Order: sequence, then structure tokens, then C-alpha cells
Amino acid sequence: MTTGVWLVGGRGSVAVTSLIGALAMRAGLAGPTGCVTELPEFAGAALPALTDLVFGGHDVASVPLVKKAESLADAGIVPASLVRALDEELALAEHELRPVPSEGGQAEAAAQMAADLTAFRERHGLRRVVVVNVATTEPVVTPNPAHADLDALEAELSGGGAVLPPSSLAAYAAFQAGCSFVDFTPSTGARLPALDQLALQRAVPYAGHDGKTGETLVKSVLAPMFAMRNLRVRTWSGTNLLGGGDGANLAEPGPNAAKTASKQKVLQETLGYLPQGTTRIDYLEDLGDFKTAWDLVMFEGFLGRSMRMEFTWHGCDSALAAPLVLDLARLTSAAHEAGYSGALTELAFFFKDPLGAVPHGLADQWRMLCDFADGLRDAPGNAGEPK
Amino acid sequence: MTTGVWLVGGRGSVAVTSLIGALAMRAGLAGPTGCVTELPEFAGAALPALTDLVFGGHDVASVPLVKKAESLADAGIVPASLVRALDEELALAEHELRPVPSEGGQAEAAAQMAADLTAFRERHGLRRVVVVNVATTEPVVTPNPAHADLDALEAELSGGGAVLPPSSLAAYAAFQAGCSFVDFTPSTGARLPALDQLALQRAVPYAGHDGKTGETLVKSVLAPMFAMRNLRVRTWSGTNLLGGGDGANLAEPGPNAAKTASKQKVLQETLGYLPQGTTRIDYLEDLGDFKTAWDLVMFEGFLGRSMRMEFTWHGCDSALAAPLVLDLARLTSAAHEAGYSGALTELAFFFKDPLGAVPHGLADQWRMLCDFADGLRDAPGNAGEPK
Amino acid sequence: MTTGVWLVGGRGSVAVTSLIGALAMRAGLAGPTGCVTELPEFAGAALPALTDLVFGGHDVASVPLVKKAESLADAGIVPASLVRALDEELALAEHELRPVPSEGGQAEAAAQMAADLTAFRERHGLRRVVVVNVATTEPVVTPNPAHADLDALEAELSGGGAVLPPSSLAAYAAFQAGCSFVDFTPSTGARLPALDQLALQRAVPYAGHDGKTGETLVKSVLAPMFAMRNLRVRTWSGTNLLGGGDGANLAEPGPNAAKTASKQKVLQETLGYLPQGTTRIDYLEDLGDFKTAWDLVMFEGFLGRSMRMEFTWHGCDSALAAPLVLDLARLTSAAHEAGYSGALTELAFFFKDPLGAVPHGLADQWRMLCDFADGLRDAPGNAGEPK
Amino acid sequence: MTTGVWLVGGRGSVAVTSLIGALAMRAGLAGPTGCVTELPEFAGAALPALTDLVFGGHDVASVPLVKKAESLADAGIVPASLVRALDEELALAEHELRPVPSEGGQAEAAAQMAADLTAFRERHGLRRVVVVNVATTEPVVTPNPAHADLDALEAELSGGGAVLPPSSLAAYAAFQAGCSFVDFTPSTGARLPALDQLALQRAVPYAGHDGKTGETLVKSVLAPMFAMRNLRVRTWSGTNLLGGGDGANLAEPGPNAAKTASKQKVLQETLGYLPQGTTRIDYLEDLGDFKTAWDLVMFEGFLGRSMRMEFTWHGCDSALAAPLVLDLARLTSAAHEAGYSGALTELAFFFKDPLGAVPHGLADQWRMLCDFADGLRDAPGNAGEPK
Ligand SMILES: NC(=O)c1ccc[n+]([C@@H]2O[C@H](COP(=O)([O-])OP(=O)(O)OC[C@H]3O[C@@H](n4cnc5c(N)ncnc54)[C@H](O)[C@@H]3O)[C@@H](O)[C@H]2O)c1
Ligand SMILES: NC(=O)c1ccc[n+]([C@@H]2O[C@H](COP(=O)([O-])OP(=O)(O)OC[C@H]3O[C@@H](n4cnc5c(N)ncnc54)[C@H](O)[C@@H]3O)[C@@H](O)[C@H]2O)c1
Ligand SMILES: NC(=O)c1ccc[n+]([C@@H]2O[C@H](COP(=O)([O-])OP(=O)(O)OC[C@H]3O[C@@H](n4cnc5c(N)ncnc54)[C@H](O)[C@@H]3O)[C@@H](O)[C@H]2O)c1
Ligand SMILES: NC(=O)c1ccc[n+]([C@@H]2O[C@H](COP(=O)([O-])OP(=O)(O)OC[C@H]3O[C@@H](n4cnc5c(N)ncnc54)[C@H](O)[C@@H]3O)[C@@H](O)[C@H]2O)c1
Ligand code: NA
Ligand code: NA
Repeated sequence: MTTGVWLVGGRGSVAVTSLIGALAMRAGLAGPTGCVTELPEFAGAALPALTDLVFGGHDVASVPLVKKAESLADAGIVPASLVRALDEELALAEHELRPVPSEGGQAEAAAQMAADLTAFRERHGLRRVVVVNVATTEPVVTPNPAHADLDALEAELSGGGAVLPPSSLAAYAAFQAGCSFVDFTPSTGARLPALDQLALQRAVPYAGHDGKTGETLVKSVLAPMFAMRNLRVRTWSGTNLLGGGDGANLAEPGPNAAKTASKQKVLQETLGYLPQGTTRIDYLEDLGDFKTAWDLVMFEGFLGRSMRMEFTWHGCDSALAAPLVLDLARLTSAAHEAGYSGALTELAFFFKDPLGAVPHGLADQWRMLCDFADGLRDAPGNAGEPK
Repeated sequence: MTTGVWLVGGRGSVAVTSLIGALAMRAGLAGPTGCVTELPEFAGAALPALTDLVFGGHDVASVPLVKKAESLADAGIVPASLVRALDEELALAEHELRPVPSEGGQAEAAAQMAADLTAFRERHGLRRVVVVNVATTEPVVTPNPAHADLDALEAELSGGGAVLPPSSLAAYAAFQAGCSFVDFTPSTGARLPALDQLALQRAVPYAGHDGKTGETLVKSVLAPMFAMRNLRVRTWSGTNLLGGGDGANLAEPGPNAAKTASKQKVLQETLGYLPQGTTRIDYLEDLGDFKTAWDLVMFEGFLGRSMRMEFTWHGCDSALAAPLVLDLARLTSAAHEAGYSGALTELAFFFKDPLGAVPHGLADQWRMLCDFADGLRDAPGNAGEPK
Repeated sequence: MTTGVWLVGGRGSVAVTSLIGALAMRAGLAGPTGCVTELPEFAGAALPALTDLVFGGHDVASVPLVKKAESLADAGIVPASLVRALDEELALAEHELRPVPSEGGQAEAAAQMAADLTAFRERHGLRRVVVVNVATTEPVVTPNPAHADLDALEAELSGGGAVLPPSSLAAYAAFQAGCSFVDFTPSTGARLPALDQLALQRAVPYAGHDGKTGETLVKSVLAPMFAMRNLRVRTWSGTNLLGGGDGANLAEPGPNAAKTASKQKVLQETLGYLPQGTTRIDYLEDLGDFKTAWDLVMFEGFLGRSMRMEFTWHGCDSALAAPLVLDLARLTSAAHEAGYSGALTELAFFFKDPLGAVPHGLADQWRMLCDFADGLRDAPGNAGEPK
Repeated sequence: MTTGVWLVGGRGSVAVTSLIGALAMRAGLAGPTGCVTELPEFAGAALPALTDLVFGGHDVASVPLVKKAESLADAGIVPASLVRALDEELALAEHELRPVPSEGGQAEAAAQMAADLTAFRERHGLRRVVVVNVATTEPVVTPNPAHADLDALEAELSGGGAVLPPSSLAAYAAFQAGCSFVDFTPSTGARLPALDQLALQRAVPYAGHDGKTGETLVKSVLAPMFAMRNLRVRTWSGTNLLGGGDGANLAEPGPNAAKTASKQKVLQETLGYLPQGTTRIDYLEDLGDFKTAWDLVMFEGFLGRSMRMEFTWHGCDSALAAPLVLDLARLTSAAHEAGYSGALTELAFFFKDPLGAVPHGLADQWRMLCDFADGLRDAPGNAGEPK
């Protein structure tokens, strides 16, 4: 099942790391460490093979893929040897990247993006195309009545209105082109009632949002541990130091607010109450794509005894995110194939701020994901082997 | 359902903290923080009420309960105000403690212990008695052919042989007296084929072993997290600094080996392989009952990228252990009531080194425990409310 | 040499902990751990004996001393047994506390404060009185031309102007009454040219400012270590989590800015450049008087190799500050006696943001302090033994 | 002043990193980060210029220098670009490495080593040669009467005895050849009375021992901080996880004991007492040349209040050690030139276990080092500029 993966923000760190990884695995130069869908639980689940993925994308930047890949190697995110070995493949991939349409109003831009997606599908004879948003995080969006209803939205757009943030415009274009959509960022993306209506109308699924790769991942196993032991978490305070393009952007008050809010939900949801404390994001240019998070948890045990736990997480963000982008593309495409449409709440495992009223504890999300994969395996059209 | 809890090591820190907590909750002076069986998942599961527990025990030491309670308060393990408020109840509890029988051979000792248990049951009109081993950890036991078979064991004992370590003798006496048994320590306890036969013969259940309260608890959620994300743990190295009576003993090579071995199993079982690194236990008198564990985890992600996580756990061991002792007593007694016998593998959630071929990930153990509680709730004799 | 110690903020945590400690040492109930001036280096340095200190103070609050002492004991800052043993002494000390004068303008308030100081000196026949500001941190002060010159200041005050922040008014009153002054807080205090002129005119010394008790103390030894090894610190990022009255106040933007600015100076001064990164202060009610600071230092070594260090500091702020308050009172009083006047730059060792162009590395400050003590020892009036 | 640096263990990580760094600085490809003697305090101190150093060495291994350099680059210790740029220089340096003489007895081996040194000096017209031991750490040496006296030692050696460990034989050969000696390892080296006599007889200085690069460096500033503040350190417990060739060797009980003993001295010396706790070294192959140390310090403050500090140090050992090797070579050579002989206690700053009754606090050692450099600057033969 040849499947297209269209990356919005296709010249960014996460996108290019995903691409290098997929090319390296296809060439037999790397194993699937970090790829969830390569675990035994997903065998035979009718997913497109990693080697059957074809990549394209939009970006507002124009840095050549090979340059970006080299800078990822210099920064220690991907091995330099891989970048050297894959230079021809990267040069080919370059041809599948398009600038974000900027002329005309939002209606014209959306039409152009949809046309790019359709051309990509036809050029490669793809059965399915998944659009994955890995572009820069946007500020929290200004509410607009047109967001609540598809008709109102269409009216606004055809009247020349510019009411959608870029991530939502990308989702709109994807749905119009019959593509499924994954929002890996905290941006609004498909999370507007009007877009949900459109997705259901076009019978395409969408997943999101905000890839769970570091501190929140750890929280999603530790917070349930405290809950299961009936220990009362009094304070949970986190500091995230990060560099890279994403870090610089998140240091802006708008995106920062979007991201830190999404980082606290897991505590409320898994503990049943919100402990004192905040999560901070600070930008340290020098950290590059590496993130250091420090969390202090103070909790109360038997007879009021106060205790504490600390952890430090030192992760390479793009290396953590990239395999999940591949996982999400495979799973969303398979869901599309199996007839799912609208919000894919079953993929909560991958997200900081998952869609729907779903559990936030990782173990529960894992079970939900495995059940979902079992369902795909048993779906009518599945011959039992990845196609 | 009035239930007896007989604590082997009844003058130790864990035992006395459990006792103070149960008395405090009965008097309405403390809430159930740390008690797993007070979570909503256990409502209506036919457990004896916390306020229906009656305590007794064996110990080789003779420090008065009130003295021990005061020293726990001085050390900050229990509030001094509680100890003052409960001094009468503690003085009463003192009467239920017995010295460990030391005259005659092991057969005589066992008979005396069983007699102590029977007298305790009759004195208080108890429906069930659970024996919980919270005595000092023993060195790893020397294998003996009599351990493998009940007949051989009985023959040895009646011939005057002393082939059982004290924890196993306690289990033997418990079973003979028709009591269930919980091994909260890493000692051998009931884990001998001969004793398993006896438990089945007498239709009593037993649970164990080694209460999971600190570093291993954290490992049991973090290791599955790495596994679910297909991240490869290269090294996992832990240092445990602990004081207290238990710490002094665990610094001895024999018990230390028993304990550290039980601490590494969770990695092998949840990851499917054993990473490099060891777990050390060091004794620092000054730490008292507080334990500081530091763990370093180095793992490999996408395309071989190396990353790391560290955590520090600063817990009060007796405060973490005591509510679990109460949980285990309630659950084991209810299991006895519901007709369970032999190894209670369903209680793996509570143990570092659980009985049976069970999962070591905390979330899976939690699910197993909840299913078990559901089963108790639906058991024929359960009127639907704790009696 | 009976010496008065007048605490501005005399009912606060630092003040009352200092008082309890001094009373406990006088009664032989506690040793001098944490008191720098009890180290061998200060033997014979003509300091007033710890047991010769007499306490009084101003506060805007009216919580009784004994109540405050009990709450310090409940919070684990001072031993409950000490508070019980000292209740009579604390009741006596209560009589030496005065409300902060609030009627009339600043001139009247200053006159009343000076009168309180004079009465205190006479009541106890004190040779010297040191005023120590341990009141709540003020917001950064608004500049005013009257701050720059004593005559202008006197004119403003006598014209009914209210141009001084409370901490500076306290310094003004102290100088008027012939008392030396220590500013233990980041507030403005004596650090105005007009007040410096007054101190010189009255021949009294003053010291400050902002007691160095936690993260900055550690920085003041670690930063020089990196400098001496020619290692380049790229980023130094700190998070301070603190509770207590001080914490609540420092979470306010004004005082927070004052405090964090004073915390970064040590890096600029000892490294010779300012690395990336900030120091944050977050308020967590639950921490009470305990502070947890976490610092991440990323540095570059030979051939550009990047390395890192982290530390966590978990200190009890009042317990760290209180003995320094006693040290500063003794040293400032002795300096007064020895004829020092104006800024006592020799006491930089004790402060986050020391007066004068002094070294910020702790070892250099220590040497300066020891030289100063040597000077006191050799001063003409010193008989060679503490009087 | 062209100066020879003869590295015992010349194919090891520290040696080759030193060499690469010196060559890179000479070629203008790298700056002096990490080189203490490049700080302003050493300007004009009559040190040989970094660019005037010529390298040679002994090793029992035969891995080619270029290979070793490449493996250092792969491990991230030195930049790959430097290794590529310096391949010719490395190939030239290869010619100056000699196998450790192994034929005949120790007398013959020493004579051969001395001959190697003399030939090296003559081949390059070197004014001074410093021998620096950076070979594998040896087990603690067995005492032998011949160690106590030079005559006895000479008698033993000429009688065919093999009484010296390799590090001491290297020192013996160095002294015989009129070379100064630096022991960068915890091995015995020159620290035998017999060898001290020989050094004095030949009028050559020697320095040592055990380069201070990580945890002990941090201890040497933190322990004095606690002492200066009169805070009582109750426990200081350290865990060192290290990989690399050195790590594998230190995991052996013999060398481990040598190293951990040398790591605890700093506490005894700077605090005046030895707190509870030990320092452990564990080998984790995966860490390569990177070391992670975690230390927990529990201390007592005012009125007995217990507090704690933790730190994690994540350093690249060879990158930390290499510039110090260059510093030591420069300083020891200059001391030789200035007429020093015997133990160079002034260089304590660089060592975990310094020679002589010297301070162990880093700041005091720094002052001693700066005074020493001042002395060199003022030495009769110094024209005021590095020659
Ligand atoms: N790396 C992680 O662990 C992780 C986890 C969760 C979410 N995310 C999110 O993933 C996104 C990508 O992160 P990154 O590190 O690759 O950032 P990056 O800055 O390296 O890349 C973002 C790319 O998006 C492009 N872009 C910006 N606006 C665009 C637009 N309107 N349309 C198309 N392209 C646009 C930029 O030019 C850039 O190439 C961020 O939003 C980040 O918050 C990352
Ligand atoms: N606290 C925890 O978090 C935790 C977790 C897992 C296991 N455990 C285990 O629980 C046990 C108790 O720990 P503790 O901190 O209370 O220790 P403790 O030293 O305070 O108490 C042990 C008690 O056992 C008594 N004892 C010794 N030998 C005995 C015997 N043969 N028969 C009867 N009594 C005997 C001792 O006299 C003492 O009173 C230890 O084995 C420990 O390893 C504790
Ligand atoms: N504890 C430390 O480690 C440390 C270190 C450096 C500086 N400090 C400073 O010491 C000061 C005291 O800290 P704390 O923890 O005792 O705080 P606290 O809140 O317990 O006490 C402050 C006291 O000052 C009183 N006060 C407020 N305004 C006043 C005024 N105008 N005149 C007189 N009294 C006034 C308050 O009523 C209170 O009793 C703070 O400014 C703090 O920043 C503390
Ligand atoms: N790196 C640091 O931070 C640091 C700090 C203090 C001390 N040291 C010491 O420096 C030494 C070198 O460390 P490394 O990491 O380079 O180790 P390494 O294993 O990389 O190198 C040691 C070299 O010594 C050689 N060797 C062994 N026995 C020898 C002998 N008898 N004569 C000559 N050569 C011999 C080995 O073949 C090897 O090439 C060790 O003793 C280590 O303990 C290192
Ligand atoms: Na830590
Ligand atoms: Na840490």
C-alpha cells in the first residue's frame, strides 16, 4: 500500500529527521528503534510498510534538504555517515517540496495546497495521502464565529475572509483533497467544529495533537503511579530548557502559553486534581535540539508524611519525534483505509493533548492503541500481512 | 468481618507504623492516604474494613511498642501528635505481642507459634487471621532437599531437623494454624515447594514477596514506558542509600544480594532484555528510615541517538510500606474468604519480586489487581458492601 | 560588650529563628553550627559574645513571638523541644518588640523609630546597637533626586515628603540614632548616596545586602571553579522553588525582579562574562520555608567539547539565614567599635549582592573576611579575648 | 624554550587527546579552552609556549596514533574535522612513540627507557624533557624494603630484582635521564622515598598525583564552602559511572581501591573530619569516555536542621584531563629550569591526591599555584616573556 506522507513544515528538524530515518531504513542502513509500529503488537495490522512511504511537503522556508540534513548531522541529531550515504535520495526528495502558497486570499491558498496534494498523489500513484503538520507552533488562535460551523466557514472563505490560522488552513486543504491529517504540534489544526464537519463529510480521519516526546511522556506514567498508590501529589513543578528553532519560537509568549497549557492536562486528568506548580519553557540557544527537563514532585503519603521525587530528562527532541511521525502516518493511513473518519481518539498514546475524552495515562492509552491495531488487523480488507 | 493481622517482626518500623496508622484511622485521626484498597476501584469488594483489623505479632526484640512509636515520631516517620493521642491503644496492643519461641527444635517452635495464632483468633473471635512477615531480611537460604516436598519436610522437622529459615518457619506455622500468609520481605517465607503443598492442603492463600515501595516502583512504570516507545535502554544503574534497621542489615552481603537481585528482575521482565548496570544498596546511618535512590538510565532512540534520564527518589520507607501491609492483609483475608488457596499471583502489584509468571509492569499489575477485586465483589458470599 | 540587635521584621521567620538560636545557645541547649563567627578563625577577634546579645525589633505584624516560634517548630525549622524550653525567654523578648510607627509623615516615623532605638539602648545599658533589616523584600524603588544627596533628603523629609522606601527609612532612623545597620534583604536599605553620607557623618558602619544562603552560595564556589580551570560556561540556568512568607512575596513581579537580578551578578563577576540562562523564582506554598533550587550548567572544555553539571539544593532558608544574622550583628558591632564607618565592604562573604567593588568568589571573600577579623583582633582597644 | 613531553601510555585516550590539542593549537585550529596556564595569571611566567612542545612516548599497546585519534573522534571526544586536518602531523608523531622495553630485568628496562629519553632529547635539541605518566592505573603496590632507600633500591635492581611497579620504573628511568616527572595517575610513580632521593640527587622536580578532573574537583570547592559556613556535613556519598579503557580497569578491585581512597582525602582535609559515606566507581561500557558522577551531601545547619544537596557531573574525562597534561608539562619544565627539585607540592591544584602537606581546597591551591607562577616570573633567568 504505497502511501504518501505530506509534511507541512517539511524543511524543519522533525520533518527532515523523519525523512532521513525512513530513507535509511528503506536502504537497510538503520533499524527501527523508536518506531512504535514496529513492535510485535502491530505485526499484521495492515499498516503500510515503512519502505512504502513516499514523502512530500510544504514549507515557508527554502533551505535545501541536503543543507538541513547536514546541519542535523553537525548537531548530532542524525549520524553524519547516514547523511552522506543518502545524498542522492535527499536530492530526489527535494523535488517533492513546495512553497506554501501565499498569493491571493485563504480560499486561493487552500485550493493551491489541495492541488499540490492531488498532484502528489497522482504523480506517485498513491492509494492514500496523510498530511502531517510539523510546522512551527502558532500562537493561540483568536476565536471566530466561522470556526463553529462549516457553512459559515465556507462563506467567510469564499467572501475573501482570512479567518483560519495556517495550521487549520492546511487541515482544510487536506480534507478538501481527501487526505487524512495529523497534527503533531500544539497549533489549532483540525480542532475546529467546522473542520470536524468537513472531515466527516469527506470521510477522512484526523489525529492530534502535540506529539508527546519528553517530560509529558514521563508524567503520563509517573502521575498514574502516584494515583494507583493513593499517594497525594502536592506540587509538580517542571522546567524545560530547550534550544533549536522550536525553542526560539516557544519562548514567545503566545506559543509558550499554548504549549505549557497542554503540558499540565495530564496531571489533572490522571490524578483527578491539579497539584500546585507550573511547567516552564525557557529558551537556551546553546541546547540546540536537545531538551533538558527537570521536574520536582512533592507528595504526601501515609499519615501525612511528605516525600519527594525529581527527574531530569535529557532528550533529543527531533530524534524522539521523528519515528512517531512515521508511526502516525502509518496508523492514520490504515485507519482511513479501514473506514474511520473524524477524530481518531484511539491514537491518544502519541499526544500531549489528545483529542476526545480519553485517558491520559500512558498504559491506558497503550491498551487503547493495541485494541485499535487489533481492530485494523481484523478489518475485512486486511489480508493479515502488511501490504 | 473482624480480621486478625499477625505481624512477624511486630516491633519493627514497618509493623509499628502500620499499627499506628490503623489505630489512627479507627480513631478518625488520619485519612487513608497511601492505602490502595481505599481507592474507588475497591469499593464494595468484600474487604474487611480498616477499622475491623485486630493486631498481634511475634518479635525477637522486646522494645516496648510505645517506645518504638516515640522513636518513629522523633524520626519524623509518624506525627508525634498521633503517638501521644494513641498511647492507650498502643499499650493495649502491647498485650498482643509475643516473643518468638526459641526453646526446643523447629517443630516445637512452629507448634508454639501456631498455638499463639490460634489463641489470638479465639481470644478475639476472629473470622480470619493473616500472618504478615515484616521481620528483618534474612540472608539467601541454603538449599535443602526437604524444601522440595512436604513429606520430606515433615519428616525432617519431626526428626529434630532445623532446615527452615525463620521466615519459612513462620509460614509453616501460619499454614498449620489455618492462617493465610503475606511475605513483605525478600526472605524465603512461603516460597518453597513443600510450603506451597501445605498451603494448598490447608486451603489457605499466600502472597509475596518483597514490598515494592521505592526505586522498583518507579522502575515498574518507567521501564514499560521505554518498551512501549521502542526505545532501547542501554544502561540502568541505581544507587540506594538507606539507613534504619533495615539499611544496616541490608548492608550485610547476604541480605544485600537477596535484595538487589530482586530489584533487577523488573527490567528483564518489562524490557525483554537486561541492560548494563547494577543496583547498589549502601548504608548511611544518618538517613534513618529515609531512602534516597538515584538512577541513571541511558537509552538509544531513532537512528542510534543516545539520550538519558535520571531520577532521585527520596522516600520514607516505613510510611510507604505500612499502608501496603494493611492493603495486603485486607486483600489476602478476603481472598481466603472467597476460597482462594496457594500462591496469590493476583497481588503482584504490591511486590518487587511477585509470585508466578506475572507481568512486572505496574499498569498491567494494576489491571490484574482490579480484576481480582472485581472478582471478590462478585463472589457468592459478598453482600456488596464491606462487612 | 553587651550589644543590642534590633530586628526590622522582628516577627518574621528569619528574625525569630535567630532569636531562638541565640537564646538556645545562651541556655546551653544548642551548639553554634552554622555560625561563621564561631569558627577558629574568629577566636579573639573582639566580637561581642553570642551570649551578650540583647534583642528587640520593629514589625508591622502583631503575631505573638511564642505563636510564631511554635509555627516554626511545626514547620520543622526549629526543634519543638527548644521552643518549649524557651517559652519564658520568648515571652520576655516579646516586650522588646515595637510596632512600626505609622502616624504622621516619614520624618515623624523616623524620629519615632530612632526614639525606640535610643530607649532600647538605654533600657539595657547597651554599648552598641545594630539594626538588622530582615523585613519583607520591597519592590524595586522608584528613583528620586532626594536619594542622591543628604541635604536634599532632609529638606524633602522635613517638608513632609515620603520619598524613602521603608527599608531606607529604617536605615535613616538607625543612623540618626547612632546605630550601625545591616541589610539582609535585597531591599534598598542604606544603599542611597544620601544615606551613605549620613552614615559617614555619624561615623557608623553599614553592611549589605541580601543574605547569601542557597543557590547563590553554591554558585559563588562553582563559578570560580570553572574560571580557574579555563572552562567556558555557556549556559547557567536556575530554578528556585520556595514557599513561606518570603516566597509568596517574591512571586510578585516587583520583588522577584529585585531578587533575580541580584542572583545573576555572581556569574558576571566571577566568570568575567554572563552565560546564557536565567534564574527563576517560583512560589510553591507547600514548600514552606524549604527551598529547592535546581541549576543546570553547560560548559565547554578542551577542543570545544560540551559537558554539563546539575545540582539540586534543598535548604531550609531560615535555618541558613539565622546564624548569619547573628554573625553580621557581631561583626558590624565590632567594626563600629573599632572605628569603621560607611560601607563595610569587608563583609561581602555574607551577601548575594555585596557593597563595593569586591570579589564575588566565596574563597576570595573568605580571605577578605579573615583579614578583617585579624584587623579587629589587632585593633588598639582589643584585649585579645571576646569581652 | 623547546620542551619535550614524553607520555608514558602515549597511545591512550588522555595522551592522544593532549597531542591532538597541542597540534591543533599550534596549527591555529583550536583555542586554549581548558588550559589553565593560558589564563592571564600565567602571562609572562617563563613557561614554554604551547607551540614549543614536542611529543614522544612509551606504550605497551601498538594501535596506530591515527587509528586512536579516529576512535576518539567517533566517540565525540575530539572533533572529527581536527583529526582529518591533522593526519600528517599525527603520522609524524607516530615516529616518536616507542614500545615499553620488556626484555631483560628491570635494570635493563630502565636503562633502555632512559636511553629512549636521551635520544629523544638529542634528536630534537630539547632543553628539557618532562615525562608524564598517563598509563593505565596499577593496583596498589606491595610494599618492599627497597622502596625506602635509594641504595637498597639500586642494589636490588642491579641484582636482577623486579621490585618496582611499572610507573615507578618509569619515574626511575626519567630521573636517571635527568628528566622531570609528572604522575597524572593514582599509581605509585615517583612516590617512594628511594625515588625522592634520586630526584633530589639529580636535581629534577616531580609532580603528582592523580589528575583532578571531575567529582573530586567539585568536592574541592563544595567541601570548603560547607566548612567556611560552619555547616556540618553528615554524609557525602558518591557514585561514579564510567566507561572507556580507564573505566574497565578501575572496575578491577585493585585499582578501584587505589582510586576511591584518593577520592575521599579531600573531605577529611577540608572539613577536618570524615563524613559517613563512600565513593563508588562502577564500570558501564556504554558510557565510553564520559563519566557521570552523582553525589549526595547531607548536612546539618543551625539548631540541628538537616538539609541536603545533590549534584550530577557529566564530563568527558579525556577532554578534561588533556589540557591539564599540557599545563603540567609546561609548569614542571619551567620549575626544572628555575632550579626546583624533588616534590613540586605547589602544583596541588591539579591533583586528587597531591604531594606534601598541602591544602585540599581548590581556592587555596589556586593561590599557591599563582604564587608559584609569580615566583617563576620573577626568577633570575626570566626575561619576562614566555620563551
Ligand atoms: N520535536 C518534538 O519533540 C516535538 C514534540 C511535539 C511537538 N513538536 C512540534 O513540531 C513542530 C516542528 O518542530 P521542529 O523542531 O521541527 O521545528 P523547526 O523550527 O525545525 O521546523 C518548523 C518548520 O516549519 C516551517 N514553517 C513555519 N511556518 C510554516 C507554515 N505556515 N507552513 C509550512 N511550514 C511552516 C518552518 O520554516 C520550519 O522549516 C513544532 O511545532 C513543535 O512544537 C515537536
Ligand atoms: N520499608 C519498606 O519500604 C520495605 C519494603 C520492602 C521490604 N521491606 C522489608 O520489611 C522488613 C521490615 O523492615 P523494617 O524497616 O520494619 O525493619 P526493622 O529492622 O525496623 O524491623 C524488623 C523487626 O523484625 C524483628 N525480627 C528480626 N528477626 C526476627 C524473627 N526471626 N522473628 C520475628 N521478628 C524478627 C526485629 O527485631 C525488628 O523488630 C525488612 O525485611 C525489609 O526488608 C521493607
Ligand atoms: N531566609 C533566607 O535565606 C534569606 C536570604 C536572603 C534574604 N532574605 C530576606 O530576609 C527577609 C525576611 O525573610 P523571612 O523568611 O523572615 O520573611 P517573613 O515573611 O517570614 O518575615 C518578614 C517580616 O517582616 C515584616 N515586615 C513587613 N514589612 C515590614 C516593615 N515595613 N517594617 C517592619 N517589618 C515588616 C513582616 O510582618 C514579617 O513579620 C526577606 O526580605 C528575605 O528576602 C532571606
Ligand atoms: N581522564 C581523566 O580524567 C583522568 C583523571 C585522573 C587520572 N587519569 C588516569 O590517566 C590514565 C590514562 O587514562 P586513559 O583514559 O588515557 O586510559 P587509556 O586506557 O585510554 O590509556 C592508557 C594507556 O596506557 C597504556 N599502558 C598500560 N600499561 C602501560 C605501561 N606499563 N607502560 C606504558 N603504557 C602502558 C595502555 O596501553 C593505554 O594505551 C589512567 O591511569 C587514569 O586513571 C585520568
Ligand atoms: Na537530582
Ligand atoms: Na539530577
